[in-house]
Amino acid sequence: MIDTGYSLTLSCPNRPGIVAAVSKALFARGGDIFSAQQYDDVEHGLFFMRVLFTLPDGGDHYQPLQADFTAIAEELGLRWTMRDRTRRQRVMIMASKFDHCLADLLYRRRIGELPMDISAIVSNHPRDTYDGLDLSGLPFHHLPVTKETKADQETALWRLVGETGTDLVVLARYMQILSDGLADKLSGRCINIHHSFLPGFKGARPYHQAHARGVKVIGATAHYVTADLDEGPIIEQDVERISHADTPADLIRKGRDIERRVLARAVRYHLDDRVMLNGRKTVVFRD
Amino acid sequence: MIDTGYSLTLSCPNRPGIVAAVSKALFARGGDIFSAQQYDDVEHGLFFMRVLFTLPDGGDHYQPLQADFTAIAEELGLRWTMRDRTRRQRVMIMASKFDHCLADLLYRRRIGELPMDISAIVSNHPRDTYDGLDLSGLPFHHLPVTKETKADQETALWRLVGETGTDLVVLARYMQILSDGLADKLSGRCINIHHSFLPGFKGARPYHQAHARGVKVIGATAHYVTADLDEGPIIEQDVERISHADTPADLIRKGRDIERRVLARAVRYHLDDRVMLNGRKTVVFRD
Amino acid sequence: MIDTGYSLTLSCPNRPGIVAAVSKALFARGGDIFSAQQYDDVEHGLFFMRVLFTLPDGGDHYQPLQADFTAIAEELGLRWTMRDRTRRQRVMIMASKFDHCLADLLYRRRIGELPMDISAIVSNHPRDTYDGLDLSGLPFHHLPVTKETKADQETALWRLVGETGTDLVVLARYMQILSDGLADKLSGRCINIHHSFLPGFKGARPYHQAHARGVKVIGATAHYVTADLDEGPIIEQDVERISHADTPADLIRKGRDIERRVLARAVRYHLDDRVMLNGRKTVVFRD
Amino acid sequence: MIDTGYSLTLSCPNRPGIVAAVSKALFARGGDIFSAQQYDDVEHGLFFMRVLFTLPDGGDHYQPLQADFTAIAEELGLRWTMRDRTRRQRVMIMASKFDHCLADLLYRRRIGELPMDISAIVSNHPRDTYDGLDLSGLPFHHLPVTKETKADQETALWRLVGETGTDLVVLARYMQILSDGLADKLSGRCINIHHSFLPGFKGARPYHQAHARGVKVIGATAHYVTADLDEGPIIEQDVERISHADTPADLIRKGRDIERRVLARAVRYHLDDRVMLNGRKTVVFRD
Repeated sequence: MIDTGYSLTLSCPNRPGIVAAVSKALFARGGDIFSAQQYDDVEHGLFFMRVLFTLPDGGDHYQPLQADFTAIAEELGLRWTMRDRTRRQRVMIMASKFDHCLADLLYRRRIGELPMDISAIVSNHPRDTYDGLDLSGLPFHHLPVTKETKADQETALWRLVGETGTDLVVLARYMQILSDGLADKLSGRCINIHHSFLPGFKGARPYHQAHARGVKVIGATAHYVTADLDEGPIIEQDVERISHADTPADLIRKGRDIERRVLARAVRYHLDDRVMLNGRKTVVFRD
Repeated sequence: MIDTGYSLTLSCPNRPGIVAAVSKALFARGGDIFSAQQYDDVEHGLFFMRVLFTLPDGGDHYQPLQADFTAIAEELGLRWTMRDRTRRQRVMIMASKFDHCLADLLYRRRIGELPMDISAIVSNHPRDTYDGLDLSGLPFHHLPVTKETKADQETALWRLVGETGTDLVVLARYMQILSDGLADKLSGRCINIHHSFLPGFKGARPYHQAHARGVKVIGATAHYVTADLDEGPIIEQDVERISHADTPADLIRKGRDIERRVLARAVRYHLDDRVMLNGRKTVVFRD
Repeated sequence: MIDTGYSLTLSCPNRPGIVAAVSKALFARGGDIFSAQQYDDVEHGLFFMRVLFTLPDGGDHYQPLQADFTAIAEELGLRWTMRDRTRRQRVMIMASKFDHCLADLLYRRRIGELPMDISAIVSNHPRDTYDGLDLSGLPFHHLPVTKETKADQETALWRLVGETGTDLVVLARYMQILSDGLADKLSGRCINIHHSFLPGFKGARPYHQAHARGVKVIGATAHYVTADLDEGPIIEQDVERISHADTPADLIRKGRDIERRVLARAVRYHLDDRVMLNGRKTVVFRD
Repeated sequence: MIDTGYSLTLSCPNRPGIVAAVSKALFARGGDIFSAQQYDDVEHGLFFMRVLFTLPDGGDHYQPLQADFTAIAEELGLRWTMRDRTRRQRVMIMASKFDHCLADLLYRRRIGELPMDISAIVSNHPRDTYDGLDLSGLPFHHLPVTKETKADQETALWRLVGETGTDLVVLARYMQILSDGLADKLSGRCINIHHSFLPGFKGARPYHQAHARGVKVIGATAHYVTADLDEGPIIEQDVERISHADTPADLIRKGRDIERRVLARAVRYHLDDRVMLNGRKTVVFRD
């Protein structure tokens, strides 16, 4: 279902009549809603909605519907997106030395679980870092980075995003911090996996921190990238139990499993139009 | 929020326009939707919806709205319920020897977590079985049962359901099997906790079965009661990990924790109008 | 099994021959080991062991065995405890306004799940705060506290610990911070439940912090009390998933369930001689 | 640590003195125990033990120790194994059409998480089924099977096990049922992943069964292969929550994640000498 029909997501200050207006507009163009979720943020008086729908075969119903919504959006003060879900989104994956998340995303794409096209694989390490992964047919870009070349590297990166028509950038354990400027430009379409449970262990070597503190549960966090690396809106988290007998190496091993499944879920939610930004938080419509 | 506003739940064969019709009808009476969920059962062509809404202060808007919906329901072929959520539902709790679920439900009610009135506590054991539980102020009924008196006991039970205005019956480890007739009469408003993960271990002594089989995970199942005790529509399940070192007694102990939280969640979902029947399954609208 | 036989726990710098020496000493007095766990902290070169054993009926084998171990301990540099598990430990429970942990611990004691005697229930709130809980037969002490009276209150508290022969103090959502002095005196025998996942959300109102941060998982932490309230050695943690739709009130509700089961597990582990201190961390021998 | 030192596993009817005898024998040859676990199956009067130890550098201490244990084993009635953990075990992976478990195991081997050599990859499908997986350098065997050729195929398979020095056979979603004869020959060294939570949904299409039954939790089971495919001793299980909105396709997708992590854990436990057979159950020494 993730690649069927059309999606509409919208948010606005809450007030009566929004759902009625949306339903009516879709109905008027022959739209058939097959999934809908909504959320009232009572605290902030905001309303969020995600609708999946089909349109009748024959004739162009999509353009007129978009025109209808442009008018409705102005009237109701909506922030909205509408998307043809049969068009695959183009995803750039960025990695560094550790490739468990990269390998996992590519595997899920290969078997059709993540309906996406790979616009580029970008690494600050050379291609032979990933010997053993089959990257054949995938455009690989080695963009090394040093303190001195960081600005240039990011310029090249941003150009690549544009040239490749990238919709979403996934930092799959890419161990470089994006500049504030680039983070801003990619706002809402760049997902990072933080190899720890936030806000518990920010910063470097979180599994060593967890071991030193003697916690009994570790986790990982997928979030949108913002200027503050560890404070972006959280999309998904998961955890596993550990014990005193787990060494830092055990935590890193168990962490890999959590990281890859948390990142894969976050990417899937994004591709499935389930994630909406709500200030420094997200609304994630899970069924 | 569980005791605020009104709820509308409905199901019907799916077709375009249902949401629009519902939204329009609510909007026409000044209804303000603050939560809505819907589900398309594509496999069976069925549509399910839950709407929470408020009505304007002053004047009676509820009765006219109900009249509106009676008409709409006929037109669209809806099965529906509408409920004033500020009216507390009346719940009969039935227990036998083990009282961990009974104790837990009463505790959650006492601190306001489960907004319900206790219409009756019924047991096939005498009241002093529960010494140590504070049952003061709660109507206790000792209805012993033997093979010979079962029909009479159930007649008394059914009369009690009526006399006390009971909305929901909760079998809180009540170890008697209801007759098919009584199960039918209580269809959709009688919740049982099965002290095992279904369909894994049906029948008696499920934890001993689990131990003998050497499983690594045990669970509990809350479901609506039907004539087939172990086959009613499942509302909620949960599990915990176990190991080879757990004895049957350990499983029973761990099982108590699972049972009481699974039952409490199921009762809460029911009281919160989140559960709808879909054949031999349920739709449970979790946020 | 939690109230059967004898326990021996020991820790020491690791070196060959410890297990052999221990086994030999137990065997020499007719001891039959029915459970044993050990852990090598390779990082710090420390060794931890827990042994459960029975002794032959008839004659006093326990006193001589203790004498044997006193000699062995000196030779091997052991920190050790030996305990007759058939003697119930005396537990003081301290609570404030919220009583879900208190209620839960009392319930588990009543049904025999936690083999302990209640030496005292202490609260800074009056007894009628707990109307609805059956405290009959349990010694209740109201020890109110203000900034001015804190030192006196703690003096009374410490005297009570001594007079009642308290083995373990459980802070069951007792919302007062113990002074460093009292925390030191209770070192290793005072368990607190922190109503949050540490080190994620320290300090006050952790569920509100979690809501504001938009995390997808919340948890609770049981730990030994030290001078730094949020940094004591962690005994047990657990978590639950949450979503954007959970309000702070929902988190508090879900948190209660996590808190009470985490605290109950920690108390059980302690009573079952499963927890050993290892610097600012614990070793918890779970099967 | 999984590839360090030596392991000793043993089981026998329980009686006093076993641990002392084992400790003494290891100590006598300079053995230094760095991990030990034991389990008393009180119900059946059986004792299980796993010991990891190092031996002094220089000179051959391993052969004499094995000789010592042969004598001890006879005296005490031990079933035992002793293994040099620095020697990598040789693992044959068998797959059919779905390769998520195969891909996962190969990935974990590549990054050093599973210390094993691949003795063979065997499939009843041709090699190009796995285009996209990098199988370079791995011996691939296409052993197609039909009802008529099954006996011959198994003969070839068994010969391959011998010729390749295979220690462990992993059925990584190999969709053929082994004959009773072959299952017997591979007893205790052939692991299967059952794509469902046993004993809940035996037989074919378990995720469709789970969907039809409306369960709220699905799982997967890794077990040793026996003549009865669904009844072999369980090594590991895990689960995930599902909802009414999950289609059978969603369950299959979520199931893949559970399957691969459950199988990987079971293989790791086996390679780490953590699993012992106890009748139709296992003892799994987890830390």
